[in-house]
Amino acid sequence: MIAEIITIGDELLIGQVIDTNSAWMGEVLNQIGIKVNRITSISDNRDEIISTLKEASKRAHLVLITGGLGPTNDDITKKTLADFFRVNMRFDEKAFEDVVHLFSIRGREVSAINRLQAEVPENCITLYNKVGTAPGMWFDEADVVYVSMPGVPYEMKYLMENEVIPRVKKRFKTPFIVHSTILTFGIGESFLAEKIASFENKLPSHIKLAYLPSAGSVRLRLSGSGDDEEGLKKEIEGLTKELSDIIPEFIYGYGKDELPRVVGDLLKSNGLTLATAESCSGGFMAHLITSIPGSSAYYMGSSVTYSNESKTQLLNIPPSLIEMHGAVSEPVVLAMVEAVKKLFNVDCAIATTGVAGPGGGTPEKPVGTVWVGVSTPHETKAYVLKLGDNRLRTIEVAALSGLNLLRKGLLKK
Amino acid sequence: MIAEIITIGDELLIGQVIDTNSAWMGEVLNQIGIKVNRITSISDNRDEIISTLKEASKRAHLVLITGGLGPTNDDITKKTLADFFRVNMRFDEKAFEDVVHLFSIRGREVSAINRLQAEVPENCITLYNKVGTAPGMWFDEADVVYVSMPGVPYEMKYLMENEVIPRVKKRFKTPFIVHSTILTFGIGESFLAEKIASFENKLPSHIKLAYLPSAGSVRLRLSGSGDDEEGLKKEIEGLTKELSDIIPEFIYGYGKDELPRVVGDLLKSNGLTLATAESCSGGFMAHLITSIPGSSAYYMGSSVTYSNESKTQLLNIPPSLIEMHGAVSEPVVLAMVEAVKKLFNVDCAIATTGVAGPGGGTPEKPVGTVWVGVSTPHETKAYVLKLGDNRLRTIEVAALSGLNLLRKGLLKK
Repeated sequence: MIAEIITIGDELLIGQVIDTNSAWMGEVLNQIGIKVNRITSISDNRDEIISTLKEASKRAHLVLITGGLGPTNDDITKKTLADFFRVNMRFDEKAFEDVVHLFSIRGREVSAINRLQAEVPENCITLYNKVGTAPGMWFDEADVVYVSMPGVPYEMKYLMENEVIPRVKKRFKTPFIVHSTILTFGIGESFLAEKIASFENKLPSHIKLAYLPSAGSVRLRLSGSGDDEEGLKKEIEGLTKELSDIIPEFIYGYGKDELPRVVGDLLKSNGLTLATAESCSGGFMAHLITSIPGSSAYYMGSSVTYSNESKTQLLNIPPSLIEMHGAVSEPVVLAMVEAVKKLFNVDCAIATTGVAGPGGGTPEKPVGTVWVGVSTPHETKAYVLKLGDNRLRTIEVAALSGLNLLRKGLLKK
Repeated sequence: MIAEIITIGDELLIGQVIDTNSAWMGEVLNQIGIKVNRITSISDNRDEIISTLKEASKRAHLVLITGGLGPTNDDITKKTLADFFRVNMRFDEKAFEDVVHLFSIRGREVSAINRLQAEVPENCITLYNKVGTAPGMWFDEADVVYVSMPGVPYEMKYLMENEVIPRVKKRFKTPFIVHSTILTFGIGESFLAEKIASFENKLPSHIKLAYLPSAGSVRLRLSGSGDDEEGLKKEIEGLTKELSDIIPEFIYGYGKDELPRVVGDLLKSNGLTLATAESCSGGFMAHLITSIPGSSAYYMGSSVTYSNESKTQLLNIPPSLIEMHGAVSEPVVLAMVEAVKKLFNVDCAIATTGVAGPGGGTPEKPVGTVWVGVSTPHETKAYVLKLGDNRLRTIEVAALSGLNLLRKGLLKK
């Protein structure tokens, strides 16, 4: 059961708008066992639309189309669909009632141009849109279903959830697809691949493994498809367990977990509080932590000490210690983490000091050298990282590493 | 001059990753007069890749491909390209040196699998990647140029800016396109459109005006195309000046300026230092400031005081003041900005306190209410903002607003 998505609009091709609709539709279809094979973005151009529809109809059973349904001249999807199917337009009274109703609750007059929004190709089933003025359309022709929806994300989502998905489930027999995502931190893609090579090589053909890397972390995704949902779920569960047992020290979560949320949940469930002292990460660790709603329950704040003087003024780091070891050193990061713990009167703390670059590197401490200090109620430890010469990546990985090291520290006791 | 973009990766089709690369590439190509006609996302599947390449080569002069270049088994783009061109692979010594160098500065060993990353199809020009382990590849075959790049956004951007765009400009004759971008902050798109309506309506047909909104700011881009480069440049310059004169109070820069850099340059040129005190912005203002290389010359740090207690402990805000007015109030933000200025012994300071949400709102102070305090050597002032109910957007706009208000304060004297 194969689907394709076609998104229509010049704004997608010149980069004015990022196509977020396709990813959302891909995820929703995937959840009901429909594989999206291709996503195509094209301009508001009649010939492009028709040729893309023709190609898609040869490959897919379901073609979802978004965009080009507005009331203005550049929106030509509806007329082009009528041409594609060689049919005329009809006026849909009920769709027009929806338009009139929507305008009345927004306190606006219906204009002649809005009347056109209730016209649809005569071979479609109208999908009534309660949250916008352009109706969706469902065409079932020569064993292919085509669905046309507005490009406005919340209108598309309304129609998908209330009209399209229920109809698709009725119309097609869909296989079961089961996913499991394992979230790792602190190991590169190639090292991970080596560690799990024998696991990967013996996977059956209906199970796929994908590596999804981002700064400092790699997500591993197991996907299986088949007809026996229960059996498949058990199989994927078993494989997830097996994979987890090979690399337990690198796993911080599963599925949609996020590292700052995992750390926050650990702190909350242990009734612990946290503060941070940031030099090279420059406030980014505080930002990651406070991105999570409710973080004020366990996070007290950060001393971002970006100069040697501020390390002394705010955290009482002796100038002699900085002079002797350098600001990027184990003794200084340990002094920072202890000091900030006292200053905020908290149970746990994380500190960073490093050379983010591009300037400031030396042969002994090249750009990318970062010391991270972590303190839990049980121990205080320092770690050194080598993060390379991309400033923003170093800031990001330093901050995430601090959180991951605290996570590991909290699990240890 | 037509281009197509092909993005490869199962993660795009199941909605795990949103394709942001295509929009970025579309914008960059558009700026040099190349029209992107189609964006296609497909899976890591040999036959799909080959058929998509074949189709694209019939329609476009330039085909940009991202994704599927990692070292693991699911990354098959490189091998498939060799099959498509019917060539063998060769080992690229220089690409391997890049891999070895990158691993050494990250303090890691090169594994056998990483050696494979330096293999490329023998008919390509290697595009050396200084920020990642997968090189880009440039193929010029039968009047079509194909470029393959990694899917990791910052690696793709590095290769586009340093290798692909310069080569494309040399290889193809592109029309003269002149752009001018005017950067505004603190005014919504529709209000801006009203203010500049008469300017916009009288633009000649070869000049286009685009509105590019993002959190808190709108970029206005004037683009002209034609054969007379010098005349076009002068015309766009004149229009930029004319447009600037209509809305001077909202403009913080031009072209590729960034607000944190503009503020940093102002501080540096006036020999001034800065510190921040952040409650609702949670360290994000510090992060924006420290994202700029060299910011340690003028930025001393931040007190991120995320709890009432930490506002008292670190900034000596009297508990009675918080009790009387609430933490989100003019008196508290003024006290914060004055306190942090003394604490870090600096010339300028910015403070934020607000309700980022989703919790914590009241009828008088709904979610999205943010107080910003700004202190320069000349004055200290507080401002209230209403930023709505999207937590991450509120954090971002609060931080950017603080920087913009400092900028305006520094220009005043």
